[in-house]
Amino acid sequence: MAAAALWRLRRAFTAAFSSAAAAAGPGRPEKLTVRRQAEGVRNIILNNPRRRNALSLSMLQSLREDLLHDVKSKDLRVIIISAEGPVFCSGHDLKELSSEDDVKHHSQVFEMCAEVMTLIQKLPVPVIAKVNGLATAAGCQLVASCDIAVASEKSQFATPGVNIGLFCSTPAVALGRSLPRKVALEMLFTGEPLSAQEALMHGLVSKVVPEDKLEEETMKISQKICESSKSVLALGKATFYRQMAQDLDTAYKMTTQVMVDNLTLRDGQEGIEAFIQKRKPVWSHSQDKKK
Amino acid sequence: MAAAALWRLRRAFTAAFSSAAAAAGPGRPEKLTVRRQAEGVRNIILNNPRRRNALSLSMLQSLREDLLHDVKSKDLRVIIISAEGPVFCSGHDLKELSSEDDVKHHSQVFEMCAEVMTLIQKLPVPVIAKVNGLATAAGCQLVASCDIAVASEKSQFATPGVNIGLFCSTPAVALGRSLPRKVALEMLFTGEPLSAQEALMHGLVSKVVPEDKLEEETMKISQKICESSKSVLALGKATFYRQMAQDLDTAYKMTTQVMVDNLTLRDGQEGIEAFIQKRKPVWSHSQDKKK
Amino acid sequence: MAAAALWRLRRAFTAAFSSAAAAAGPGRPEKLTVRRQAEGVRNIILNNPRRRNALSLSMLQSLREDLLHDVKSKDLRVIIISAEGPVFCSGHDLKELSSEDDVKHHSQVFEMCAEVMTLIQKLPVPVIAKVNGLATAAGCQLVASCDIAVASEKSQFATPGVNIGLFCSTPAVALGRSLPRKVALEMLFTGEPLSAQEALMHGLVSKVVPEDKLEEETMKISQKICESSKSVLALGKATFYRQMAQDLDTAYKMTTQVMVDNLTLRDGQEGIEAFIQKRKPVWSHSQDKKK
Repeated sequence: MAAAALWRLRRAFTAAFSSAAAAAGPGRPEKLTVRRQAEGVRNIILNNPRRRNALSLSMLQSLREDLLHDVKSKDLRVIIISAEGPVFCSGHDLKELSSEDDVKHHSQVFEMCAEVMTLIQKLPVPVIAKVNGLATAAGCQLVASCDIAVASEKSQFATPGVNIGLFCSTPAVALGRSLPRKVALEMLFTGEPLSAQEALMHGLVSKVVPEDKLEEETMKISQKICESSKSVLALGKATFYRQMAQDLDTAYKMTTQVMVDNLTLRDGQEGIEAFIQKRKPVWSHSQDKKK
Repeated sequence: MAAAALWRLRRAFTAAFSSAAAAAGPGRPEKLTVRRQAEGVRNIILNNPRRRNALSLSMLQSLREDLLHDVKSKDLRVIIISAEGPVFCSGHDLKELSSEDDVKHHSQVFEMCAEVMTLIQKLPVPVIAKVNGLATAAGCQLVASCDIAVASEKSQFATPGVNIGLFCSTPAVALGRSLPRKVALEMLFTGEPLSAQEALMHGLVSKVVPEDKLEEETMKISQKICESSKSVLALGKATFYRQMAQDLDTAYKMTTQVMVDNLTLRDGQEGIEAFIQKRKPVWSHSQDKKK
Repeated sequence: MAAAALWRLRRAFTAAFSSAAAAAGPGRPEKLTVRRQAEGVRNIILNNPRRRNALSLSMLQSLREDLLHDVKSKDLRVIIISAEGPVFCSGHDLKELSSEDDVKHHSQVFEMCAEVMTLIQKLPVPVIAKVNGLATAAGCQLVASCDIAVASEKSQFATPGVNIGLFCSTPAVALGRSLPRKVALEMLFTGEPLSAQEALMHGLVSKVVPEDKLEEETMKISQKICESSKSVLALGKATFYRQMAQDLDTAYKMTTQVMVDNLTLRDGQEGIEAFIQKRKPVWSHSQDKKK
């Protein structure tokens, strides 16, 4: 690893350690993310760049809140998670993990983290990670946990927990399901980063573009998603994750029924009718059956 | 996606909708595939290019028949599925899915489709997809379901069901088991195509060659397969899919016994003896034990 | 496959057949591996190049012994498996498989092989395959079974059992878990080799370097591993393989608890404290809890 990369990793950790919570006013939970929404696209921006967007309990709570906010609304069609500053996300806030006797607090942090990571796959809309920089430890896990990930060429991905005596065992759950086993283990055992191109080759991200095309590419994918029916995408996403945990025969039996059900949706028949009539479909986005 | 690609996708769908069945004579089931066999190699050609080789019920039945025909014969050693025309296969015939009240017919189509897809892995001979063009929706699923896939450089792969309000949930079963999760989900959520090179990088196909080498490369693989014992390949193929669904210890226990059994086959001992005697093996292709 | 490659494969098999056991003195088990250890790094060298490092029962026993030797010692931090000569490992010794009536001996060979392959993942230290040449059949399985694999550009990987009537069903267990299904099946059905670059693209190895950089790159990874706490790596490795066999929710529940436990380790708190104090951590490498 180049000296510059090492320096970045070090800085990421250092910053993660400094408690962002100290900056919050008394009695008022701090808001470490920014949420913006327009034309179906919700942008959630990790907004604590001075702390390298560490996943402190506060950050996790902010993120969770922004992911869940009014999630069933027809106005929400896709979520993009991005970050302010050169580090996408540096993982846990180490200060929250240092007090040796507070096992209960440690549990709370890791449980909230796992809850947010698994929540992403349970949401009814696609979630895109838009990465422009370094994603480490639980930050790398966050990228791996999204449905889609677009990264700029300068982005890097690492799980350097071994450097501080804390193996990235929870990030490994997401990495082991996104990367070939050997690539995941080399990252976990050495802490060394994967380049964006390596991440693409090995499947951790689904697209890599020059930094100045990152916004454009992410919006292109988002707009394509917005052209579809929310209810159809929600059914498809839930079905995808469900069948992946099944054996082949069970998966085909379940999805075959889902296809039949999909056709009975109002938007299922609208789509096919529109196609036959050579017109643009008009989606209801509702889960209603066709009358 | 380039305009040309969009146009091709649109054409693929349009054609798929027009019912090929209308062309069949009365009282006689139409035959939408061509089956040719020589020197152990069976070519099954999807042969309804005007309808973009849509997987109508008739096409699925023709394909199923050609896959199963005399499949235990020693004369059959490998099956190649290819297609006539610029579209390999455009997926389901949308007309068969449009009549909203005929849920029973929809079920029949999807069940037959799942049956053909899973049948491929149960056949005692390797099945190769030879792709020269666009494979979409259930057509992409067909490629993903074959044992081996060779594609020309111009080939493309997409699951654009979201465009017509029908999420590709059954194709997702095959895609999710052939591609990294993020790549599969980006395809499923956006409907955008993967290039041949991307399909190779991500494991959907096992080889990509220039269009004018497609025949040569596919035949090279086929001839290599024909040099081996049919019974040994059949045992190996069945064992491969069986162990993939098992945990590591069970898989090793099962395959260890298979190795021992393989050695008791007539062709198992013939292979080793021939090697020792530095001669070409003479395969019986039978499942007989060595006397 | 080029003529040269064919020739190498043929030579690999021929050599594997000649019994290495004949070279061993009476009454004394031969030692077919060389074990060297310095500064935490154990090198195990397959050392029967005249027999192409075939995995005879003797070789498997030597390898097993070297893997297990004093494995809990704090002096051992990482294991590298390499090989003497142009062939990394040619798989089973065919002579041990040729006697048709000795089913019991065949079972013993395959069981010992499966034991060594699964042992690698159970060891408390990372195991790196350092490949510089051809790895075939169970030799390819050995590479796939290591935690990390670094290969020189000239290395090749094949499962040519079909050529001798013995399908590589046990290697397929490891290959099917390291490679996309289509790539694994094309290798298994044809016996044709994968180049080092193809092996990297598809995840069978985690790094490919020019031959003259192989030693340097492998040592770089090893030294990085040696900088970490042995007990933390051991916990992480065991957890990784355990969670990979679980469903997502179970995996997160289990690893969340592991993270909490990791923090109670003496080395877990030392790592974080050292980081805060901006000093190098001093690892105990012990599994003791922090007092």
